Amino acid sequence: MVLAVDTHQNRVPGHGGARAPVERLLLDLFERYKSLAEGLVAQYIPELAKADPGWFGISIVTLDGHDYSVGDTDEPFTIQSISKPFVYGLALENRGEDYVREKVGLEPSGDAFNAISLHPATGIPSNPMINAGAIATSGVAGSNDREPLRALLDMFGRYVGHEVAVDEAVLQSESETGHRNRAIGYMLRNFGIVEGDPEEVLALYFRQCSVSVTCKDLAMMAATLANAGVNPVTGVQAVEPRYVPNVLSVMASCGMYDYAGEWIYRVGMPAKSGVSGGVLAVLPGQMGIGVFSPRLDERGNSVRGVRVFADLTRAFSLHMLNVPNLAYSAIRNSHDVASVRSKRQRSGRALEVLGDRGARARVYELQGDLVFASVEAFTREVAEAWDSFDVICIDFKHASGLGDGETVIVTDLIGVILGEGKSVALSNASHLPWLLAAVSQATEPGADLAIFPGKDLAMEWCEDRLLAEDVIALDAAIVPLADNELCEGLDADALVRLENSCQEVQFASGDTILQAGEASASVYFLLSGDVSVMIEVPGAEPARLATLSAGMAFGEMALLGESSRSASVIADSDVTCLELEVASLEVLDAADPTARATVYRNLARKVAGNLKRANAEIQALSA
Amino acid sequence: MVLAVDTHQNRVPGHGGARAPVERLLLDLFERYKSLAEGLVAQYIPELAKADPGWFGISIVTLDGHDYSVGDTDEPFTIQSISKPFVYGLALENRGEDYVREKVGLEPSGDAFNAISLHPATGIPSNPMINAGAIATSGVAGSNDREPLRALLDMFGRYVGHEVAVDEAVLQSESETGHRNRAIGYMLRNFGIVEGDPEEVLALYFRQCSVSVTCKDLAMMAATLANAGVNPVTGVQAVEPRYVPNVLSVMASCGMYDYAGEWIYRVGMPAKSGVSGGVLAVLPGQMGIGVFSPRLDERGNSVRGVRVFADLTRAFSLHMLNVPNLAYSAIRNSHDVASVRSKRQRSGRALEVLGDRGARARVYELQGDLVFASVEAFTREVAEAWDSFDVICIDFKHASGLGDGETVIVTDLIGVILGEGKSVALSNASHLPWLLAAVSQATEPGADLAIFPGKDLAMEWCEDRLLAEDVIALDAAIVPLADNELCEGLDADALVRLENSCQEVQFASGDTILQAGEASASVYFLLSGDVSVMIEVPGAEPARLATLSAGMAFGEMALLGESSRSASVIADSDVTCLELEVASLEVLDAADPTARATVYRNLARKVAGNLKRANAEIQALSA
Repeated sequence: MVLAVDTHQNRVPGHGGARAPVERLLLDLFERYKSLAEGLVAQYIPELAKADPGWFGISIVTLDGHDYSVGDTDEPFTIQSISKPFVYGLALENRGEDYVREKVGLEPSGDAFNAISLHPATGIPSNPMINAGAIATSGVAGSNDREPLRALLDMFGRYVGHEVAVDEAVLQSESETGHRNRAIGYMLRNFGIVEGDPEEVLALYFRQCSVSVTCKDLAMMAATLANAGVNPVTGVQAVEPRYVPNVLSVMASCGMYDYAGEWIYRVGMPAKSGVSGGVLAVLPGQMGIGVFSPRLDERGNSVRGVRVFADLTRAFSLHMLNVPNLAYSAIRNSHDVASVRSKRQRSGRALEVLGDRGARARVYELQGDLVFASVEAFTREVAEAWDSFDVICIDFKHASGLGDGETVIVTDLIGVILGEGKSVALSNASHLPWLLAAVSQATEPGADLAIFPGKDLAMEWCEDRLLAEDVIALDAAIVPLADNELCEGLDADALVRLENSCQEVQFASGDTILQAGEASASVYFLLSGDVSVMIEVPGAEPARLATLSAGMAFGEMALLGESSRSASVIADSDVTCLELEVASLEVLDAADPTARATVYRNLARKVAGNLKRANAEIQALSA
Repeated sequence: MVLAVDTHQNRVPGHGGARAPVERLLLDLFERYKSLAEGLVAQYIPELAKADPGWFGISIVTLDGHDYSVGDTDEPFTIQSISKPFVYGLALENRGEDYVREKVGLEPSGDAFNAISLHPATGIPSNPMINAGAIATSGVAGSNDREPLRALLDMFGRYVGHEVAVDEAVLQSESETGHRNRAIGYMLRNFGIVEGDPEEVLALYFRQCSVSVTCKDLAMMAATLANAGVNPVTGVQAVEPRYVPNVLSVMASCGMYDYAGEWIYRVGMPAKSGVSGGVLAVLPGQMGIGVFSPRLDERGNSVRGVRVFADLTRAFSLHMLNVPNLAYSAIRNSHDVASVRSKRQRSGRALEVLGDRGARARVYELQGDLVFASVEAFTREVAEAWDSFDVICIDFKHASGLGDGETVIVTDLIGVILGEGKSVALSNASHLPWLLAAVSQATEPGADLAIFPGKDLAMEWCEDRLLAEDVIALDAAIVPLADNELCEGLDADALVRLENSCQEVQFASGDTILQAGEASASVYFLLSGDVSVMIEVPGAEPARLATLSAGMAFGEMALLGESSRSASVIADSDVTCLELEVASLEVLDAADPTARATVYRNLARKVAGNLKRANAEIQALSA
């Protein structure tokens, strides 16, 4: 027996490292049961009887594909009955639920795995987890393919993430001694459940049972089911997501032979065992687990496997019916545009308007997989704020998924808001194309809906909606130097001196005016047009720090001795500026020695205003 | 029939309002099936046959106790078999799993609800959802109480959130005609499953079936099970949380009579129906649903009830095995103390050290109910950062729960980190007392662990740990005015004039130096001691905006014309300051007309530094 702890990274030497908690858990379980020698290796197929009764492996695969493995987790063995739910999923994909339901039932039989359990009148086997049901399922899964074995092997390959093969020795042993299964096959043919030559279906069935897998493979197959049918390492969809609950349901109700009720009660994970000693169990949304140990109890389940799962459930409440409150954290954050504003800097009347009316634009950031309960919680929070807002922004940056029904609810909500004459902005929703399509399709002409790549631009649009209600013209086209935010309080003489020291410069829309990292030696007074201050964000799109309009200044950190630009400035429109070399500011001293203090005071006030807004944003973000 | 849409708030008039999405969904379902007249009202108890076949109600209760109801949801009816799982939960609480297991099995019988289904040798009924199992369960649930009926009624009262009563007319009818149940009772007595007088147990069983409930009550009972046994409106624990998965398991495997396998496959929610026409279903972590409509199919399940649930599942994938990825969002945010710092403002050498080494202190904010998968994801993220940090802060502000096993894993992780000689700070964990107890108990003497009420103080401690590695003394006890951050570049003459204009003031630790809202007319130069700038946060503790030490200034916004204090300043230690009236700053002009510009420039630079840090924090918080 090999004792190997295998994770994707090396461990921190000496002490087991920080990865230890979950690894150590598996090692503990392994140590606890490795000397348990109850039960017998399956004897009914000669080839299976050759298994080493000491083999023992435990693997856990997480939904991001990390695997924790201890023991004989790379030892190959034949999959046997564990193939049944997977072939059942393939049958559903091939022929649909209704057709498959005509061939195999869904009720637990309460009988042993090899009981015949056919409905006396129709011949329909009780469920797809007993041999009779599995043979009927193989017939359906294979009947649509010219090369049914290839289709089955490809399906297993998608689950495990690599090619799989049939163990020919076991197959031969299985095929030669499978008299009971052959009897079942002919009985199914008698009832017309199996169509055509039952030997062909039996050949496929014997082969599916003889597919060679490892304990790690079992955990990966289980993790794929826990992950809505997507292999967490390869990203390949192994089975259509809509059939995953069906596959898991039959595992839950019939997966552990006549131990199913007790298993769900005590372990609580949809599971499947096989006579070669494998057991896999699926904890939806969390992980897949595989255990391999060939000694079986009288029901045909792995002795150590059953113990390991019972202990895991007891310690961690891994029961499928133990689900945390899913509505709890659907809304990551919500605020209005009085407390957190877009990066568009406003001045004068616009500032007043947003101060007064900012609470009438609400921003909701959603997060996580949005299930019914979380979407319901969100629609209710919006309903409770109903009379307080005219404009709403819904941001989906942290929302990872949205089902069909949930898309209907969100689309409906947006329709009701728009129907009331309110304005709606959606942001960061490009990963939810079906939502955007549904919303666009449901939107009446004239409804005020806008879709933005990011939240900042969406918030600016929301602010503009509030500002549009104000009749006063907000932005003059050209703001002279005298009205620039840094020049408040300067007398006419000082202004003339300052203006004479400046150089007028013009930029076209899209020009880079300042480049982050460049030497910084001048400040710019914006006479007309808009500019945006952008910073690089490692691993993401550049972020907008501010958008400035005529009457504002930029590059002003040069006045405080900053020797290089900390951000880039881009012209958002055609732009006219006055550029002043920092050293030239001293020209002011000659006329009025206190004028320079006025400029610095204005600068400090400008920065202090930005700081105040930033602190409010931090409060809102970390609430 | 009454059509009433009842939610806790009034609806927005005219159009159904923003609450419409979920309400409209229920109205749609109601309209779709209200004229469906298939099935028959139960006839076998004369009193039940009096039910109006047209009654129809649908209720959903969310995990925060909101109810959506449409139709006859306040119509009383007798609970009948829906009582069975709840009484089973009480039996588990009274006598424990092992004892109860001796009296009633866990395997679905595949038989009708009134089948006797006793084990031929032991007489143990197959499961607690058939009548035989339920009678056995009533015996166990009641046997420990002097007033067993009172205990049962109290238990139902905890689930529904109000007193419940027995419908005496139905009880009499039930008791007079319950020959089959009486036969079962005596058969159970024969096997010793029922002890004592079977008539007493039967009397209790007939009464539990005759408890009067409404459709809304059913949804509330289901929501209580979906919410780990806590009634979502009253907050009362109706059943011990550890028994909730057991109760749900028997509902899942045996709750819908001989339709259980098909039900789990097609609907996927643990459910229970009764012959009076009620069905309740539990979607763990999301909601409880009740449907009431007395027309039954041949299996004894409500015809409309079955249809409503099938439609709900189809539209919203409400299947219990359709669980979102629970590991996805365990870490709300992580950053180091170079990008986001505590509110303790640093200067000089300390700033350099944190700039150089800030990445060696990592902060993790956890969120949501921490289940196995999310804790595993967190331990792995820490493991992957293992070599990059010396100090770690784990914040639990947004973490709502942590199970026993998960507590073990987190405690183990913290132990390994401390064992490596690293430092650990925990914050906002007072709602997880068992975690704090486990960590404290497992911590070796000398290990560097600290526990803080909030993240900001924890981060300051983390920074101090990094700074402690630096040999240079960081803070002088007394910093003269000449070295104050606002005075850099002033000449000796200007400094003397400034100092002469100031007044020395002293405060004791805990004193309020400035009060938010007060008129602001002076700036303070801190000569010795620490002060904290605090702002009020509606509905929360005051938040620290900054902590300042000797050599820094506060109240400086007065220099920029701010007329009242925007924050309070508290002395953290004994403090000595120089207070300068704003108007007195003009004394500087007489000696050197440019000195005032220097002060404002210093002020602008100080504020710009704070702004830069705030912007970095915003980037980190909104990443």
